[in-house]
Amino acid sequence: MDEVKIIEIKKSVFADNEKDAEALRQELKDKRVYLLNLMSSPGSGKTTTLIRTINLLKDRLRIAVMEADIDSDVDAVKIKEATGIQSIQLHTGGMCHLDAEMTRQGLDNLDMTGTDLVILENVGNLVCPAEFDTGAVRNAMILSVPEGDDKPLKYPLMFSVCDLVLVNKIDVLPYFDFDLEKCRAHVLQRNPAAQVIPICAKTGEGVEAFADWLVAQVQAWQEQ
Amino acid sequence: MDEVKIIEIKKSVFADNEKDAEALRQELKDKRVYLLNLMSSPGSGKTTTLIRTINLLKDRLRIAVMEADIDSDVDAVKIKEATGIQSIQLHTGGMCHLDAEMTRQGLDNLDMTGTDLVILENVGNLVCPAEFDTGAVRNAMILSVPEGDDKPLKYPLMFSVCDLVLVNKIDVLPYFDFDLEKCRAHVLQRNPAAQVIPICAKTGEGVEAFADWLVAQVQAWQEQ
Repeated sequence: MDEVKIIEIKKSVFADNEKDAEALRQELKDKRVYLLNLMSSPGSGKTTTLIRTINLLKDRLRIAVMEADIDSDVDAVKIKEATGIQSIQLHTGGMCHLDAEMTRQGLDNLDMTGTDLVILENVGNLVCPAEFDTGAVRNAMILSVPEGDDKPLKYPLMFSVCDLVLVNKIDVLPYFDFDLEKCRAHVLQRNPAAQVIPICAKTGEGVEAFADWLVAQVQAWQEQ
Repeated sequence: MDEVKIIEIKKSVFADNEKDAEALRQELKDKRVYLLNLMSSPGSGKTTTLIRTINLLKDRLRIAVMEADIDSDVDAVKIKEATGIQSIQLHTGGMCHLDAEMTRQGLDNLDMTGTDLVILENVGNLVCPAEFDTGAVRNAMILSVPEGDDKPLKYPLMFSVCDLVLVNKIDVLPYFDFDLEKCRAHVLQRNPAAQVIPICAKTGEGVEAFADWLVAQVQAWQEQ
């Protein structure tokens, strides 16, 4: 099994996270690095989605991944083994989210030379991560079909701060009461500008659309 | 649609939550009321499981439910419509968990005369709710098959504090990579005393075992 670097994240000392996040975004801009903050519930398929997407994109973009988790390094190892790209594990030591300073601690442990895109897989949680700007250029989230189409009603902030919602596990739509159009309407109620892309990370269906979104985002960021 | 009482929970002022939780447990003991704290990820099927279980039990136990959520009252209304029992909604106002004082604010709004069992459906989150003793007699959690059998590795505290793990949505086992025996081993690694009961809230499979567990728990508590 591949070994990955494990970073034990320390609690932030900065009082003003918003200001810190803005500063981090500017630093990333200067380095021409696009940071995506990817959030979801536990078990919605973040890691599988990333593996599919990275394997589609790795000849077009230079990508690195930071996997945040309370414990274990299973995700970072999986990403490294399945894609070969630079992947590190951030241990939050029980903390339920990452803020900008904690994200910076991760970035400091990445070799960003020539990197176009860093994806931060945030802690699996629909509440707390939505409250903290990580300094990412954009927030995206994955909602999986088994979780139900009512989640935007119950976790309003999460869906308000995300510009992209990937609806994953569409292969099991026949087995669950999940209405894709109702889900889309609930998402747009929280954020009228949000994009919704249905995917199945297991089979690869729809993942090309997410990959294209990422390429367009990175290009726009680097050209600004 | 039935109307339910919605309680806007205020932030706790008590510094020592552990002490407060012990005091609440003693008060519940004096009133012969058993409080169960039920936790899970968003969308694991807490509400559906409760409806099934309450309908099995309502002739044997007098039950009330408190549904905690960031926003919306869909769960409390669902419970009331489907079971007819006393059901109230607790709004946490963005807070990701409940502690003992917040739980007490909910209990103060319940009519507990003659009640045997109060079930608190905590905020959907595998991180923060595990950190706060609510004053409940026992903690239970639901892990659903689509979330994956590795969750006890990633959310160690949640699985350490729960005495019962319901593995829900076993009807979709054929469509997911989920090994029930591996899951059980992971749970026991975190808490060797935990019980694991596989269920399907949608079809009712296994729910009888959960109902029996509840009856035994309540009887033991009331006889102590």
